[in-house]
Amino acid sequence: MNDEVRKRLAWVAVDWGSSHLRAWAMDAQGGVLVRAGSDKGMLALAPEDYEPALLEAIGDWLPASGRVPVWVCGMAGARQGWREAAYLPVPAPLNDLARGAVVPTVRDPRLAVRLLPGLCQHANEAGRGFDVMRGEETQLAGLVALEPGFSGLVCLPGTHAKWAWLDEGSVVRFATALTGELYALLASQSVLKYSVDDAELAEPGCREAFVAAVREAATEPGRFSQWLFALRAADLLDDSLPRGQARHARLGARLSGLAIGLELAGMRHDLSDASVTLIGSEALNTRYGLALEALGHDSRRLDGEAAVLAGLGLAQAGS
Amino acid sequence: MNDEVRKRLAWVAVDWGSSHLRAWAMDAQGGVLVRAGSDKGMLALAPEDYEPALLEAIGDWLPASGRVPVWVCGMAGARQGWREAAYLPVPAPLNDLARGAVVPTVRDPRLAVRLLPGLCQHANEAGRGFDVMRGEETQLAGLVALEPGFSGLVCLPGTHAKWAWLDEGSVVRFATALTGELYALLASQSVLKYSVDDAELAEPGCREAFVAAVREAATEPGRFSQWLFALRAADLLDDSLPRGQARHARLGARLSGLAIGLELAGMRHDLSDASVTLIGSEALNTRYGLALEALGHDSRRLDGEAAVLAGLGLAQAGS
Repeated sequence: MNDEVRKRLAWVAVDWGSSHLRAWAMDAQGGVLVRAGSDKGMLALAPEDYEPALLEAIGDWLPASGRVPVWVCGMAGARQGWREAAYLPVPAPLNDLARGAVVPTVRDPRLAVRLLPGLCQHANEAGRGFDVMRGEETQLAGLVALEPGFSGLVCLPGTHAKWAWLDEGSVVRFATALTGELYALLASQSVLKYSVDDAELAEPGCREAFVAAVREAATEPGRFSQWLFALRAADLLDDSLPRGQARHARLGARLSGLAIGLELAGMRHDLSDASVTLIGSEALNTRYGLALEALGHDSRRLDGEAAVLAGLGLAQAGS
Repeated sequence: MNDEVRKRLAWVAVDWGSSHLRAWAMDAQGGVLVRAGSDKGMLALAPEDYEPALLEAIGDWLPASGRVPVWVCGMAGARQGWREAAYLPVPAPLNDLARGAVVPTVRDPRLAVRLLPGLCQHANEAGRGFDVMRGEETQLAGLVALEPGFSGLVCLPGTHAKWAWLDEGSVVRFATALTGELYALLASQSVLKYSVDDAELAEPGCREAFVAAVREAATEPGRFSQWLFALRAADLLDDSLPRGQARHARLGARLSGLAIGLELAGMRHDLSDASVTLIGSEALNTRYGLALEALGHDSRRLDGEAAVLAGLGLAQAGS
């Protein structure tokens, strides 16, 4: 198996986040030969730890001689990462992220590593706020690789959900909502931890609870913090809810709907008749698609892994 | 000192919360002889631990013989507390909370303990939600003791901020916002922990940052989760902010303003020309008073300790 990989390896794609590293061995046609990953994310690493962590993940793929291009996006390029790849300011054309790439020092002669930059946005009078992204710009570049000159609104759900306005393949503006982190903190660290479980929307009643909560929070976002405590009170008092795990799944689905509905409330001025392109995991794409549908908006979905590979491939091909 | 307390002690007031116990030795005129407290709150205690924790705090005050009334409000009366004092449903007259008090088993013959009940609210079609309170009802009773037949809107800021609509001394409706807990989670557990410090509003620029954030969140609550991440981005990018601790204090004041502004957004339909009565610590009363003023609403302030003592005194006097 590894012999075959070594023979056909053209380059390596790496998405290096805060908590995880994911790597793909790519052939010359952009196909994935094999995947690897570890929990050696930016938060666990000092600068000198990056090369060993990378070799641990991909060392078996490397041929005995010759240099292999390794294209990396994400937090490895942060100031507190391997080496800083300074943010590119918006507006930023996505077919040229590689112009901001930096080369970290490596000892292994087989590695030719490039760290891609993130994007930053300065506040202006038009209400655009300060914002940063690192990693998502490469997924957006992947969208542009797949659909050259793309224009439209893109949502990348996650811990810090990104919304980006693209115009002919450039990011002209973006905004970040703390949705995923807010949900996780409330579900696991607040008084609600006694009352909510992570729920699959396929569980009975969960889809309905999720959709109702999205609509409520999107319509009356000012009541968000009241609705949060009401989850706890409903757990104590509401006889119409099922008992046991099903009760907490239902309330967890409602909490998820409230968090996503609050996020969508902030986007309503921008959600027009145009379709939103969702880039993320299947689970999050499904959840956001359902939430958008509940508010009368169309969406279409692009798999997050396909997007990051296309984006890294665009940088690799242009170099 | 303790001889004097033993001689003049008429009863003991106790506010027993989730994380702390506070006790006051009261004379026959409602004056405070001495205070005590500990961190033996409900979360740290099993039912059999309550009497020892109480004696540890107030044992020195008790005379050698005779029974001393001890009136307790708060989480000691929760299901997971000392003994459950079942919630009274709203509408609930506040001059008669003692009708729902329960007597826990005690060994020490000098203790005559009563645990006051909390209040609960069931959801109805008019949009009133499920809700519960435990402890705050006694502060509301204190307001009614001080101003018999009180009618109006009352806010008790805190970890779980309570808003209560009183009509002629009865709670007819109430709502809870998770404001304090939301702020604390975001400030200490989220990505914002690197960018915000708890701020006194007296620090330079903090009052202005707080007030601006209150106005923004109250006006556009749907952008709450965007504004959260924007705090982090501003820390990374905003050259107009001061450096060092002052920077993080400014951002902390803004986070506090966003959380309180979101809460007030949910109350705007109820905030009419009438003044809001704030019951809480001086620091929180000041902060909420400033937030209400920023939105054009009057408020007046009642000290939280004075309120709880008046409320426990009302129960004690009626028994």
